Amino acid sequence: MSHSIKQACKQAKNAAFRLAQMESERKNQLLLALAERLNKNKARIAEANQKDLDEASTLLAQGELSQPLVKRLNLQGEKIDQLGNYLAEVAKLPDPVGIRQYAMRLDTGLDLERVSCPLGVLAVIFESRPEVVIQVSALSLKSSNAVLLKGGREAAHSNRVLWELINEVLTQWDLAGAVALMESREDVQALLNQEEFVDLIIPRGSNAFVRYIQDNTRIPVLGHAEGLCHMYLAGSADLNQALDLVFDAKTDYPSACNALETLLVEEKLAPQILPQLFTRLQNAGVELRVEANLLAYGTNLKTATEKDWATEYTDLILSIKQVAGLDEAIAHINRYGSGHTDSILTEDKKEAETFLNQVDSACVFHNTSTRFSDGFVFGLGAEVGISTNKTHARGPVGLEGLVIYKYKLRGSGQKISAYGGAKGKSYLHQPLPLQP
Amino acid sequence: MSHSIKQACKQAKNAAFRLAQMESERKNQLLLALAERLNKNKARIAEANQKDLDEASTLLAQGELSQPLVKRLNLQGEKIDQLGNYLAEVAKLPDPVGIRQYAMRLDTGLDLERVSCPLGVLAVIFESRPEVVIQVSALSLKSSNAVLLKGGREAAHSNRVLWELINEVLTQWDLAGAVALMESREDVQALLNQEEFVDLIIPRGSNAFVRYIQDNTRIPVLGHAEGLCHMYLAGSADLNQALDLVFDAKTDYPSACNALETLLVEEKLAPQILPQLFTRLQNAGVELRVEANLLAYGTNLKTATEKDWATEYTDLILSIKQVAGLDEAIAHINRYGSGHTDSILTEDKKEAETFLNQVDSACVFHNTSTRFSDGFVFGLGAEVGISTNKTHARGPVGLEGLVIYKYKLRGSGQKISAYGGAKGKSYLHQPLPLQP
Repeated sequence: MSHSIKQACKQAKNAAFRLAQMESERKNQLLLALAERLNKNKARIAEANQKDLDEASTLLAQGELSQPLVKRLNLQGEKIDQLGNYLAEVAKLPDPVGIRQYAMRLDTGLDLERVSCPLGVLAVIFESRPEVVIQVSALSLKSSNAVLLKGGREAAHSNRVLWELINEVLTQWDLAGAVALMESREDVQALLNQEEFVDLIIPRGSNAFVRYIQDNTRIPVLGHAEGLCHMYLAGSADLNQALDLVFDAKTDYPSACNALETLLVEEKLAPQILPQLFTRLQNAGVELRVEANLLAYGTNLKTATEKDWATEYTDLILSIKQVAGLDEAIAHINRYGSGHTDSILTEDKKEAETFLNQVDSACVFHNTSTRFSDGFVFGLGAEVGISTNKTHARGPVGLEGLVIYKYKLRGSGQKISAYGGAKGKSYLHQPLPLQP
Repeated sequence: MSHSIKQACKQAKNAAFRLAQMESERKNQLLLALAERLNKNKARIAEANQKDLDEASTLLAQGELSQPLVKRLNLQGEKIDQLGNYLAEVAKLPDPVGIRQYAMRLDTGLDLERVSCPLGVLAVIFESRPEVVIQVSALSLKSSNAVLLKGGREAAHSNRVLWELINEVLTQWDLAGAVALMESREDVQALLNQEEFVDLIIPRGSNAFVRYIQDNTRIPVLGHAEGLCHMYLAGSADLNQALDLVFDAKTDYPSACNALETLLVEEKLAPQILPQLFTRLQNAGVELRVEANLLAYGTNLKTATEKDWATEYTDLILSIKQVAGLDEAIAHINRYGSGHTDSILTEDKKEAETFLNQVDSACVFHNTSTRFSDGFVFGLGAEVGISTNKTHARGPVGLEGLVIYKYKLRGSGQKISAYGGAKGKSYLHQPLPLQP
């Protein structure tokens, strides 16, 4: 962007005030207008994306980009149609703004309500897939937030054309600047100091990148640096189910943040299950790093080191440790885990409940794959990201993670000095209905 | 404390896991046991507090402490009885932990619920009033959180005896370390680096102190540095009501964070109201700092400078500015305010609603004093503090600001690979009742 980041932040803040005043119906019309603009400009999008693809294939040939990354860049044909569909889907979701969460009559003619409202200005930094420009814009506008976006360099042409199309519509709607595009690392660096204007940063990318953002800004950061997910196979687990679920959690999509990284096995179950499990995982190309005392249960096993317990592989690698029982499993997870998603496999319901209560993670599962932790799967309608924070929003975050609330008090001349004390008035504190 | 802060944090974290497992009834029994211990040790408390009072009166005579601060130290007679009463009141509040916030059947035998849970370990830093030791301990234990406390140096003897009494009971309950006492500035400094163990810091004190904490830790901070509250007198305000409300908001308790600091007056109302208002405020000892164009409306007025618009006086001083109308008032508040509490006085309901929607503050009021923003007044039962954050908790924060949530998913062997795609299963997404 040509003007400075501070200028873009100011403009975003101004646009955010206008967004905050928009009725739900009007915001949905805006999303549909965006969809229409995209649908009418498919050729322009395809052309820009082709430039990115061409540049990427050169870099691929030079070994500077990986094949999966190039694949994620692709925004052609049906994938362009999906952009408009996504906007239409978000338009159908309930508005997270303006929900009355608390209402109390403090006294006659003195009514308090707490109402959800937008955060203000978001900043979302992501990699690779250009459709995220549309997804993040849709979620931000739906929740009446302005947003500063920064996509991956390799998708620069695609990101720019998508942003231009959005901006053309926003300008017509007197909302210029409500979605801003950042195009350089220097922009991101400058953004980190804009705590006066930016209310929340959502970084998506490598662990190191997310940690860098967390360490270098006073702005609240929503997200997760790591997804170091565990499964605990308890002695009473159903063996066939366990074989399937470990396999699913590790191999279905190993680069996902909710994929399995460390398996804990109760000591007494180890001889029964590990030989079969090791063979099955190795047949699927999984490298196994096991505690020294488990080496006897297979061949071609590597010995796990302390570092393995703290590593998110995001690859076809699994570390495996034997534990004496539930307490040791919970302690291991709370020590080495990242608070993302952890699952217990057991037929003992009481043991399962102890695990669900004591493992201090955003998502705790019983007899199911860690891979289910996802906003769409959870029925949240849309996913802003997955958070391992312990404040504001935790786990898969839907639109409600993009709002906060304010208290509105409507009085009729009440003074505080009239209340309390021996002779003062007292409060009614009479709850009012949440559906006005 | 003799051992290191890191050690105290670890112990607190361990105690927090045990607290998280306690049933509501048991936690309430614990609070009542604490009340009983305090009631049986009134003499010990009075004696320790007397030491603080004696030392403080020496310092007062030397001019090193102020009279109001010394007064706040007092914990004798009836004030000691109130400690037990406070614990009993908190025991009666609803448990903020274990509340089902969301529940969804993802598929047959695959049920998701989102349940409130404690944050883990809190750190609360406060000044002067020793009863805060009890208040903060009660709120933390009620919400199943462990807490590290740091009180003011001038209340050191009182704080220590209160903590000792708490700790005696906690030790009997196998919860030693659930409430820890920090006794030096070095402890606080060390605490700021304990992001591995501490989930939330709540600093209460001067603006500079709160800002220092915010700037020097990666741990989330809940609170407010400033309470720069405004009132906007619109042209259609009821004049007598306005005179009363400005007077109330400024003079009722000028050192409170919700006291009025800047008054904005619509131009056309200025000649009608300012002469009377100035006289009334000056008669109560309020120093007036006014925009140059308002000097003609009174005598002994000071001229306000740019700095005044950004200053929280917490004293009998008021800055006054004339604005053209609503838009300028809103823009001024959003620029100079601290997002705490702002009020509009007007008989025009539409104008009031615009103000409530567009002023970006935690508390926005119509025709009432800014002094009403308070957790007890709002009916929240207890107040943890007032937050000007835009994430997690905003405005007066009750017990629910001390909890977060986790997702629990209970399955029966479901694999993610069975869902989605052309031939895969689809999700039911059938909402389940929130009251199980």
